[in-house]
Amino acid sequence: MPRLEKGLVEVYTGNGKGKTSAALGLALRAIGRDLEVCLIQFIKGGFDYGELHVVDNLPNFTLKAFGRGKFITSEPPEEEDVKLANEALELAKEIVQSEEYDIVILDEVNVALHLKLIRLQDVVEMIKKKPEKVEMVLTGRDAPKQIIELADLVTEFKEIKHPFSKGYQARKGIEY
Amino acid sequence: MPRLEKGLVEVYTGNGKGKTSAALGLALRAIGRDLEVCLIQFIKGGFDYGELHVVDNLPNFTLKAFGRGKFITSEPPEEEDVKLANEALELAKEIVQSEEYDIVILDEVNVALHLKLIRLQDVVEMIKKKPEKVEMVLTGRDAPKQIIELADLVTEFKEIKHPFSKGYQARKGIEY
Repeated sequence: MPRLEKGLVEVYTGNGKGKTSAALGLALRAIGRDLEVCLIQFIKGGFDYGELHVVDNLPNFTLKAFGRGKFITSEPPEEEDVKLANEALELAKEIVQSEEYDIVILDEVNVALHLKLIRLQDVVEMIKKKPEKVEMVLTGRDAPKQIIELADLVTEFKEIKHPFSKGYQARKGIEY
Repeated sequence: MPRLEKGLVEVYTGNGKGKTSAALGLALRAIGRDLEVCLIQFIKGGFDYGELHVVDNLPNFTLKAFGRGKFITSEPPEEEDVKLANEALELAKEIVQSEEYDIVILDEVNVALHLKLIRLQDVVEMIKKKPEKVEMVLTGRDAPKQIIELADLVTEFKEIKHPFSKGYQARKGIEY
């Protein structure tokens, strides 16, 4: 099994479109090199996302979806959402430590942090304990400063123009 | 064949990592909805990119690669590079007009424009003549102002932190 010589911590944040797509594209590239990828969804699970139809058939790609597939707006968050996000986190810790995957994508983990579904300290520790050859990708807007400081690579996806502000609806096959 | 009700013009620009990955992720999602995707590489062709190993096996995905797979630095550009980029452009125009694909990704077209391999006016006309149901995605740093004005959705990928500035080398399976 090919391995990365050195895995980094990547963060895709910002209010612009494309963060999860970029992580998926990264996964696609890695799979093409026979690397093993695990994507853990912290928030979105339960949706019928377009990409799920394809990734199920990809080799070397494992998806673990958590969350109830709805927008979380209550403050404080509901117990069920907290529970699911923490299950995702526990699994993430295990998977990162196991070194069974070369790339572990924590999709929307920044949002889970922002909504206080999981504790920042737990994510910080997971990052600090990351085995050397494992690449971690953390997506979602509002990445906390501490995460950005720990990361090796940070891209801010900045919305310059977005049609939703002109009243477009999300379209099947494009936005979901 | 499912079709988009309305195709938009998307631009992924900026100096940050993830633009082509985001376009690939978008393609993956669209394929999951049985949409047809064509990706035209304006600059990169010729490389042994990791993603090429996988996309070749994806259904509903067509890749057309142009360019010599090396960095273009000469000013004015070499005749061969101009020729290849214009071949890519001619094919792009045909493919967009044919409506055989729901999504046409013009990868690194902004860079081809910046390097003056192709004429801005030609790309502007292609965008203006786009059939309604076709989605166009234009990637590459330094997107010209006129393209941004024409686009429906623009995301700037902004580099906040990048390990290359600390001396890391591009890694197989991640950066290429």
